[in-house]
Amino acid sequence: MRYQLYYWPDIQGRGEFVRLALEEAGADYVDVARRPRGRGVAAMMKLISARRAARPPYAPPFLKAGKLVVAQTALILFYLGPRLKLAPSDEAGRLWAHQLQLTVSDLVVEIHDTHHPISGWLYFEEQRPAARRRTKDFWRYRVPKFLGYFERVLQRNGGKYLVGRRLSYVDLSLFQIVEGLRYAFPRRMKRFEKKIPGLVALHGRVAKRPRIAAYLASKRRIPFSQWGIYRYFRELDG
Amino acid sequence: MRYQLYYWPDIQGRGEFVRLALEEAGADYVDVARRPRGRGVAAMMKLISARRAARPPYAPPFLKAGKLVVAQTALILFYLGPRLKLAPSDEAGRLWAHQLQLTVSDLVVEIHDTHHPISGWLYFEEQRPAARRRTKDFWRYRVPKFLGYFERVLQRNGGKYLVGRRLSYVDLSLFQIVEGLRYAFPRRMKRFEKKIPGLVALHGRVAKRPRIAAYLASKRRIPFSQWGIYRYFRELDG
Repeated sequence: MRYQLYYWPDIQGRGEFVRLALEEAGADYVDVARRPRGRGVAAMMKLISARRAARPPYAPPFLKAGKLVVAQTALILFYLGPRLKLAPSDEAGRLWAHQLQLTVSDLVVEIHDTHHPISGWLYFEEQRPAARRRTKDFWRYRVPKFLGYFERVLQRNGGKYLVGRRLSYVDLSLFQIVEGLRYAFPRRMKRFEKKIPGLVALHGRVAKRPRIAAYLASKRRIPFSQWGIYRYFRELDG
Repeated sequence: MRYQLYYWPDIQGRGEFVRLALEEAGADYVDVARRPRGRGVAAMMKLISARRAARPPYAPPFLKAGKLVVAQTALILFYLGPRLKLAPSDEAGRLWAHQLQLTVSDLVVEIHDTHHPISGWLYFEEQRPAARRRTKDFWRYRVPKFLGYFERVLQRNGGKYLVGRRLSYVDLSLFQIVEGLRYAFPRRMKRFEKKIPGLVALHGRVAKRPRIAAYLASKRRIPFSQWGIYRYFRELDG
């Protein structure tokens, strides 16, 4: 099965959680919107706005697997998990992995909203005071609650993987959370990391997996930038 | 199977999407935290903070079904859907219903953040200017995008149900979205409703279903209030 991933071609964004799973599994996939000369984005927009599609995706990312179109990051991973051997094989385990991934999704919204608390349509500079206040609250209450939770889940599961006895897409997603927070908030994150030693070690192990290391060093890995979920603003970094 | 629902006892909140499904199905369930004399909330907090639980929920709502604990609103509905006959029976249909419900979840976050764009820990009065700007953006861009999408999905499916050929939990959730927006933004919503005739009609049909009508008239339906997702502030109502 050749999977077709549809996502914005210039940012890691939410699509990155799916790319990491496809890369770790060595899956056969096409990153459709990154095709040359803009044709890929046109193909993506065509699928979203198709007038007759009975089941149109609301937004990227979405995945085509044969005739099936699956949208929503966590749902794409729920679908791919067993197929890529990146999820438990039993139903309860798969639901648990998905539950954790949905909590990752909740965290991702809150990370994004630190720099854009008012509107995605406005520049950061147009919502700076609100961004400062939201970021302060985020690091005071939300990061400790979210990452404290994932640290607990990891430790209770033995410290090596978040779910089950082998790597899952949830581990890959937590790698991306740590990696992104380091980019967007280097000073704050450095101070915070001592509270989540398990997640930091997990991040290190994921980064060294052969396929992930090769991917991160390749041109397929889009660099962090001032677009997408993770953005660096010195004044938000405490 | 007697289901045990755990959610805050004084608000509709996210738990209401699950309550509506359980009520429509006439399911045997206990709303644990609403047990008398506060013992229910204590039971809920105990489950969340249990030191040995291998799979602790991150936050309410969560559902106990035998030994299984399922958290995350959309996931609870994904789990309950086929069991309550409120979801399609085929895999692609169940994934599609779940995908729509995840988009409902995204909308719910944005509804909440209209009145609390900076922090859930602060009063509305402490984030009023940001709330006004976010609400303006919400009604200008986000409501048309989200509800326009659901209206399209509904119309393409024949106009009666969002998914398949019979009622699903997604229809019940869209009822709750319309109902809540009417409470929180009566003037804005009144103006907007002419753009979503299908969803408005769906809301009316759901409200008249015998079990839903009986539930809405009962004490089990917690009234809207100044807590939870939907809150009325005249200055945000345009």
